[in-house]
Amino acid sequence: MNIQQIIANKRDKKILSQEEIEYFVNEYVKGNITDYQAAALVMAIYLNGMTEGETTMLTLAMARSGETLDLSTLNKTVVDKHSTGGVGDKITIVLMPIIASLGIPVAKMSGRGLGFTGGTIDKLESIPGYNIEIPINNFIEIVKKTGISVIGQTANLAPADKKLYALRDTIACVDSMPLIASSIMSKKIAAGAEKIVLDVTVGSGAFMKDKESAVEISKLMKKIGTLANKETVCVLTNMDEPVGKAVGNTLEILETIECLKGNIPNDIKEIILGIGSYIIKLAGEGDNLEENKKRILENIYNGKAYDKFIELITSQGGDISYIENPDKFEKAKYILPVVANKSGYIAEINAKDVGETSVDLGAGRVKKEDGIDHAVGIILEKKIADEVKEGEILAYVHANNEEKGEKAVKRLQEIYIIVEQKIEPEKYILDII
Amino acid sequence: MNIQQIIANKRDKKILSQEEIEYFVNEYVKGNITDYQAAALVMAIYLNGMTEGETTMLTLAMARSGETLDLSTLNKTVVDKHSTGGVGDKITIVLMPIIASLGIPVAKMSGRGLGFTGGTIDKLESIPGYNIEIPINNFIEIVKKTGISVIGQTANLAPADKKLYALRDTIACVDSMPLIASSIMSKKIAAGAEKIVLDVTVGSGAFMKDKESAVEISKLMKKIGTLANKETVCVLTNMDEPVGKAVGNTLEILETIECLKGNIPNDIKEIILGIGSYIIKLAGEGDNLEENKKRILENIYNGKAYDKFIELITSQGGDISYIENPDKFEKAKYILPVVANKSGYIAEINAKDVGETSVDLGAGRVKKEDGIDHAVGIILEKKIADEVKEGEILAYVHANNEEKGEKAVKRLQEIYIIVEQKIEPEKYILDII
Repeated sequence: MNIQQIIANKRDKKILSQEEIEYFVNEYVKGNITDYQAAALVMAIYLNGMTEGETTMLTLAMARSGETLDLSTLNKTVVDKHSTGGVGDKITIVLMPIIASLGIPVAKMSGRGLGFTGGTIDKLESIPGYNIEIPINNFIEIVKKTGISVIGQTANLAPADKKLYALRDTIACVDSMPLIASSIMSKKIAAGAEKIVLDVTVGSGAFMKDKESAVEISKLMKKIGTLANKETVCVLTNMDEPVGKAVGNTLEILETIECLKGNIPNDIKEIILGIGSYIIKLAGEGDNLEENKKRILENIYNGKAYDKFIELITSQGGDISYIENPDKFEKAKYILPVVANKSGYIAEINAKDVGETSVDLGAGRVKKEDGIDHAVGIILEKKIADEVKEGEILAYVHANNEEKGEKAVKRLQEIYIIVEQKIEPEKYILDII
Repeated sequence: MNIQQIIANKRDKKILSQEEIEYFVNEYVKGNITDYQAAALVMAIYLNGMTEGETTMLTLAMARSGETLDLSTLNKTVVDKHSTGGVGDKITIVLMPIIASLGIPVAKMSGRGLGFTGGTIDKLESIPGYNIEIPINNFIEIVKKTGISVIGQTANLAPADKKLYALRDTIACVDSMPLIASSIMSKKIAAGAEKIVLDVTVGSGAFMKDKESAVEISKLMKKIGTLANKETVCVLTNMDEPVGKAVGNTLEILETIECLKGNIPNDIKEIILGIGSYIIKLAGEGDNLEENKKRILENIYNGKAYDKFIELITSQGGDISYIENPDKFEKAKYILPVVANKSGYIAEINAKDVGETSVDLGAGRVKKEDGIDHAVGIILEKKIADEVKEGEILAYVHANNEEKGEKAVKRLQEIYIIVEQKIEPEKYILDII
């Protein structure tokens, strides 16, 4: 077995064997295969593709390239939920306590944000004291005791994926279906999930810009799930505009608290019902999706989901006085209104542009090493299809630097597209695969 | 300008601009573009190709990536000769003194051998004292005084090509037409040639295994020559069997001495006449090819070419007593005959296999860092189409290790294919492009 022959095979459009794929992944992690050899193979995969079988073998080899979690001691089916990323996407933080409050264990590892998409872990760290680095044994103990834990990915989870992802980012090979699918699925499998519900975001603020490519990658991930014996459901959600009203770390935690108190925007509600009902089904706790949705709403309105959220924060060291009294959260120095300069209906709020505006304010990272400012961000008072009068407030910019704040206000004024004719409300769930 | 965009463009089958190609080459040499980014681009070029225009721009950018020679002070047209490599290929060493003896300046940089192909520089170093590392100024002075100098490539000649070639070798991207063509042509252009005659070898012992691909790369190199304003002629020569009788460093120098004394095997004679007549023509010293061939033969038989060879060796510090008395050369310890085990006609002597047998004896390198044993090698007493009787000697193995020698004898017995029916003699010049 040698890497040059493996590269030559993919270069010549051959199907790689399990042995070849495992050899590549294992030797690459060990450092016996160089980055430039991996780069050549990745470009050959990008251009010549991989079969579903090859993609599954790559997924499993990457999943096994480091530590893998064994959640069997929980004695219940663990369903993992993962989003392909977006702007204002706090679905995991809202939904996980709901699921746990229904008696379904949540043992979740989440990632940080990069570029215009935010990360669950960054948002949770807005809560003073919340510890995302908990040893695996304690993590499982917490889940056994409280039914829920959400931590950061351990350094040694699917290290092959980490190395390959960083490489792909520098060689224009990010948007390859088999490479995206195997990257997502390898982390889920390594993290011990038995079943997986994927929130596949679609639109300007997502990896997948159109429904067609979202359907394609969803089918591929579902197939990998089947071949790897991990039942997988993909819920395609709209990411043309940001999810909910808040974009930015503390601001999204504040919105989460409101949602769990029952003040929940339409899009967030529809998405958590869509995804949540499938999580309950896959967990073996109810095949009737409509019934599942009712149970979700019930546990929001009766306060059980909120209580579970408090339990989650407490068990991970977070200061719940902030949750109970949200005014304690540090606010940005400047809160600047974005005012409509004409009357009409909101036709467009490009999610990517909003995400980038938020990064410019300091809420996100351009490079992995960058720090983030938890307080800054954007509150969208108006969403697509809303009616607006000239002079009304469209949004608020939360900034810690006046100049940056004013720049963001200007940019948002351009991002909000207002038209005269009435606009149909968006669909938030686009498809289930 | 950024490398990721350049990679993405070639990935998407776009034609790269001159700016993009120059940016890549210059920043890669400076170390601002990493090997893995170069590897991804090279694989994209391998799979998506390059136009003749792009290939020419790549050639020129690589030629200008380091030191370039200015041979204009010689006040004569300098025609460079280059072989794409083979087994027993001593054509440069035989032909260059002949050309110089006709008053056409020879200012030549040659390479070392790698794998089953030998290198001119290694062969010349068999002559005790011969110095291949001569500063450029002295090199030009020697050519002015004696009309000929043959040295090794300076370290800083087309460094981009050196880096890219080493990279291609590790990522299964060697046999790409635009990359091979630009690699060869960039070195010739950097070495100051105004006109170029390429010996494009074809067959088992060559890069190009069949005439079709040899014609294709020849047309491409000729086109690059035209676009770069360097008139180029490609002579396609047969490399199914080794050239001449000797394979191995000292053994090939001994054969060169014999050739220059007029004892010249048919294949060598035909090839030096074919290539030499074009060098004379391109140098502007005679348009009549048949007339040029006569002048070549004349200067072999009247001893002028031999005298020029002596002058070359002398001016580069070589000990001519070895040339005048070839018995002085150190011989291998074991000289073992390879005997025909049946009567018939020689149908095949696979050049690559002979080359590899010679490397196994120690005459060549597997890795760049390897040393070589100048004394060892093979003498082919019989060539394709020769008649042979059972018990007659086919070849001699020159070995410094008995076991290796016996292994080589066995292998040669398999390499020599003897058949009953008469075999047509080989054609040595296959085409001129």
